[in-house]
Amino acid sequence: MTITLIGAGNVATSLAPALIQKGHTIKQIFSRHLSTAQHLAATLPLPVPCTDSYEDIQTESDCYIYCLTDNALPEAVRRLNELKGEHLSHAMHLHTAGSVPLSVFPFTWERTGILYPFNSFSRQVLQDFANVTLLIEANNADTLSEIRVLAQSLSPMVYEADSEQRGYVHLAGNIANCFTNCLADMAREQLERAGLPFEIILPVMHHTVDKLHRLTPREAQTGPAARRDTNTMNKHLQLLTSEKDRQIYTLLTEKIISYT
Amino acid sequence: MTITLIGAGNVATSLAPALIQKGHTIKQIFSRHLSTAQHLAATLPLPVPCTDSYEDIQTESDCYIYCLTDNALPEAVRRLNELKGEHLSHAMHLHTAGSVPLSVFPFTWERTGILYPFNSFSRQVLQDFANVTLLIEANNADTLSEIRVLAQSLSPMVYEADSEQRGYVHLAGNIANCFTNCLADMAREQLERAGLPFEIILPVMHHTVDKLHRLTPREAQTGPAARRDTNTMNKHLQLLTSEKDRQIYTLLTEKIISYT
Repeated sequence: MTITLIGAGNVATSLAPALIQKGHTIKQIFSRHLSTAQHLAATLPLPVPCTDSYEDIQTESDCYIYCLTDNALPEAVRRLNELKGEHLSHAMHLHTAGSVPLSVFPFTWERTGILYPFNSFSRQVLQDFANVTLLIEANNADTLSEIRVLAQSLSPMVYEADSEQRGYVHLAGNIANCFTNCLADMAREQLERAGLPFEIILPVMHHTVDKLHRLTPREAQTGPAARRDTNTMNKHLQLLTSEKDRQIYTLLTEKIISYT
Repeated sequence: MTITLIGAGNVATSLAPALIQKGHTIKQIFSRHLSTAQHLAATLPLPVPCTDSYEDIQTESDCYIYCLTDNALPEAVRRLNELKGEHLSHAMHLHTAGSVPLSVFPFTWERTGILYPFNSFSRQVLQDFANVTLLIEANNADTLSEIRVLAQSLSPMVYEADSEQRGYVHLAGNIANCFTNCLADMAREQLERAGLPFEIILPVMHHTVDKLHRLTPREAQTGPAARRDTNTMNKHLQLLTSEKDRQIYTLLTEKIISYT
């Protein structure tokens, strides 16, 4: 497929090389900041024309993938539709924003869909798409089939999910990724007080996740809360210096007790 | 070294093969339940005598390692000291319970110490000790050197830490392991509502931990709280059905906002 990338941020930075590796051709990269598009293009094996102007977006690609934030996406679609809507109505249009419904695309575009890569992305660290779950949705069955073929060329983990399902998935991701990272920061604070390096927590965290490949979280639950060790829990609460940390400790402890 | 293991539970199950692999000899395994000791012995490459009787514990080993829970440890030491304290006074005695101070050992025993393996252990899944941080303490400098040699034969990550330091480390472990597992269960619940398999969260969680090898938790923090996306946060809060889950969501969100 020939593909135009709209957006050159966190998702596009990992998606572009994955698409090329699977034999697709990236015809053009658009970003509101030309240097961002050029920066991404420079990492790719073949030269790709870049633009920061909606007027310059070519209309001959098979597929347009919008790798934009929830906030930037509606405006980009609106501008592009205004300027070249008719010429783009037969192409496939996909966006990667899990929280934005399919209806962000104009109903005059015949083949629209969502390719939501369920993981967090950063420009610094490339994600291997083979390890990324892809949630797909489309405006009709034919388009869904096409998206499935594209998605399955990138990752073995492809699931159909509508807006409502993606809402739960997005929440699950926030809990498992952002909140886990917050717990890592709380752990860092305690290790700092002990004068020990943060790194010693990482084998513990890897083990926590590794176990979940074999056991459900409830089966895998260990610790003072799971064994009702109030002595240890009280010691821990005494060590925590901030009221908020004690509240977090208490609530998560109560949560564990509720299912163990 | 010749080693007697007191206890044949979660820690001993991973420690015994690691010790043998490093050329040490396990002379005897004690457990209050003979079958537990025998079960561990059966997994080892050479036969090891087992006992459930304090009277039968031989006193010729170089080192006695107590792999017991916080609660079981004091009683085991007391019984052994009562029965054979004098014959054991020259041997090295180590325990693996991070929360129990060195003073659990009688002061008449000359070489006592702690070898606290900082990770969670289960009988089902062997831990590779090469990936386990070992925190050591001893009653004198010579014993500390001996323990360091033993510990460094098992793992490259060996740190000296006293009771106070181990307290912070134990709390950090509870936060990073037990509470992260609790978040995984909260994520599981949301994925279940979406009709999607729990497994799709695992690449996300692996990525969360992998990132922490390169970035501090604060640098790695992403998500709606970090970018003050109140719209998404409100959507998430509306999806959560239990008051406790909403409280956990709110507190962790406030915590992230406090440092981003």
